[in-house]
Amino acid sequence: MTSTELHIVVPAGGSGTRLWPLSRAANPKFLHRLTGTDRSLLQATFDRLVPLSSAENLLVVTGTAHAAGVARQLPDLPERNILVEPFARDSCAAIALAAAVIDKRGPGAVMASFAADHLIADTAEFAHTVARAVDGARAGHLMTIGITPTRPETGYGYLRCGEVAERSVIQRVLEFKEKPALDVATKYVESGSYLWNASMFVWRTDVFLTELAARRPDVADPIRAIAAAWDTPAQDAVLAELWPTVPKVAVEYAVMEPAAEEGKVATVPGDFGWSDIGDFETLGELLGVDAGAGCRSVATGTHDGKVVAVDGAEMIIVPAGGRLVATLGVRDLIVVDTDDAVLVCARDRAQDIKMLTEILRTRGDLDYV
Amino acid sequence: MTSTELHIVVPAGGSGTRLWPLSRAANPKFLHRLTGTDRSLLQATFDRLVPLSSAENLLVVTGTAHAAGVARQLPDLPERNILVEPFARDSCAAIALAAAVIDKRGPGAVMASFAADHLIADTAEFAHTVARAVDGARAGHLMTIGITPTRPETGYGYLRCGEVAERSVIQRVLEFKEKPALDVATKYVESGSYLWNASMFVWRTDVFLTELAARRPDVADPIRAIAAAWDTPAQDAVLAELWPTVPKVAVEYAVMEPAAEEGKVATVPGDFGWSDIGDFETLGELLGVDAGAGCRSVATGTHDGKVVAVDGAEMIIVPAGGRLVATLGVRDLIVVDTDDAVLVCARDRAQDIKMLTEILRTRGDLDYV
Repeated sequence: MTSTELHIVVPAGGSGTRLWPLSRAANPKFLHRLTGTDRSLLQATFDRLVPLSSAENLLVVTGTAHAAGVARQLPDLPERNILVEPFARDSCAAIALAAAVIDKRGPGAVMASFAADHLIADTAEFAHTVARAVDGARAGHLMTIGITPTRPETGYGYLRCGEVAERSVIQRVLEFKEKPALDVATKYVESGSYLWNASMFVWRTDVFLTELAARRPDVADPIRAIAAAWDTPAQDAVLAELWPTVPKVAVEYAVMEPAAEEGKVATVPGDFGWSDIGDFETLGELLGVDAGAGCRSVATGTHDGKVVAVDGAEMIIVPAGGRLVATLGVRDLIVVDTDDAVLVCARDRAQDIKMLTEILRTRGDLDYV
Repeated sequence: MTSTELHIVVPAGGSGTRLWPLSRAANPKFLHRLTGTDRSLLQATFDRLVPLSSAENLLVVTGTAHAAGVARQLPDLPERNILVEPFARDSCAAIALAAAVIDKRGPGAVMASFAADHLIADTAEFAHTVARAVDGARAGHLMTIGITPTRPETGYGYLRCGEVAERSVIQRVLEFKEKPALDVATKYVESGSYLWNASMFVWRTDVFLTELAARRPDVADPIRAIAAAWDTPAQDAVLAELWPTVPKVAVEYAVMEPAAEEGKVATVPGDFGWSDIGDFETLGELLGVDAGAGCRSVATGTHDGKVVAVDGAEMIIVPAGGRLVATLGVRDLIVVDTDDAVLVCARDRAQDIKMLTEILRTRGDLDYV
């Protein structure tokens, strides 16, 4: 293994609470067939990434609850490439662990990180964009791939770039911006110099780990010790001792934002039909088919029920419980049927669905979360 | 058995399509626990009626699909008192068959007929009213028990009475009125001389059968022959030959309306907290409990799921599939979950739910009807 190979990391965490009750803590969205095919989001991600590198050089970082699901869905992924966190410590820990393990296995490698649960329509353009980002990473930049925005989305963070974004050309990232209000998002998109932050990162492991050590030794030190013990008989004991001490922090906050201020972050704008399948609105838009009466029905490929919609409008129906879902005279609703829970939600409340999971947790109804 | 005993007939038919998907052709509402207790509507009807007579003198007329359900729900009802129609021929055939069988078993008996799926709050007042109606029947009238209207309901037929209705006093019925428009219903109720037709009838079997024979020999002749063969080895062969020839007609249309024109029909106004549990609006009103956020949750006693409602209003939720039903930011909806179907319906479309069963029939989805 040499430092010229591309290593790819797929953090597979998060329960997708805005897709509840379809997505659960025990059965998160990346394991679901939300791709319009018989492949799960994780499998589609694997299919898309392996040609850019190899299964040998692809790592999935996941939690204890999903290790088996990942292993079964990706039979071609070597066992040693499934890194199982004892419990979630946010994205900085997950990515740093992967970077440190990759660096240990092949020092100075270029590493890319892509979420397990995003959809990408134009695979060829995606590969082309990643190749440009790898060039930037080899030159020592902390690279991101920012998504050319198509609407003033308030659900994403943004990257403020140094010049007008142009497809596949490396640009400086001046600033990371949190999820904006609608008026701010509209200005961002109109300005032409903002991209969506899709948490797609490409860098040399040595460059990233040096930045991390300088800025967050509280993360870097335990991660370095854990990585040193990885693949050895000491792995379990070291994890037990040190993992609980790793701070919970997002990699953007810990490393990328301060590095951007120092001119160390660059981006390649991506324009390859990206979607994060983060909520039922996106699901309906991308995967829904006309079910009559203004309703879109979303098949999830496992246990799809029938839909009969009468005198409706602007409905998104996900009949994933195998039952018939019938609607009469209703509009602007999301209806989701699953094996053990049914959701009826106003479409303009789609972003608040996670509230329900919080209420259920509070009530002690953990089976449904 | 003498003619002074009261015989009671309970026609148990109809699939309650306005309560779909809770009520099905194969599992109609009278077999459901829609009483707020662990008794079904049929059982509650039996409990209410037996003290007015006896299980020996109570007949249930039902279809082939429900004979077993009736037999199991009413273990104290003698087998010979479950009259099973080969297939449904509307209310005149069902009631005439019962009248003829009762007349055969005990000529000149007084017979009362009450639906299997109505709720009555004040059992004592009900018994008192029935006793007055029996007095009228003994005197030779075709008696009805009309319900004192509490609102301008457009879902019921009305009885126009000869004078202002007064509780438990026999009055002439001048006319049977079909389900009226709202403005007409409002006038009816304001006039004070209209009662709801709840299809509660009380008469001497000989009086009724004579009226039927005079007006509708096409019904009376085959029914008389069938009744003659009832309880004999010839029953099955005679049913096979004659039942298909019996016209489908409502008893109101065949007998009561023309008899009323001739002054032969009287009524006792009833004021005993009657409800027909005909739709989800009634179900929510009578049996719903506060589930928070302006929602009423209706337990059906068999397979009740949990409800979590957030930021809602004016909802009726029937979680009869054992699943969690969650709603967020929605109002004025009926949500019904069952083992194999989910309904989401605008409350102002509750009367149109039977449309869905018709659509499902047309599509060939008979399992759901």
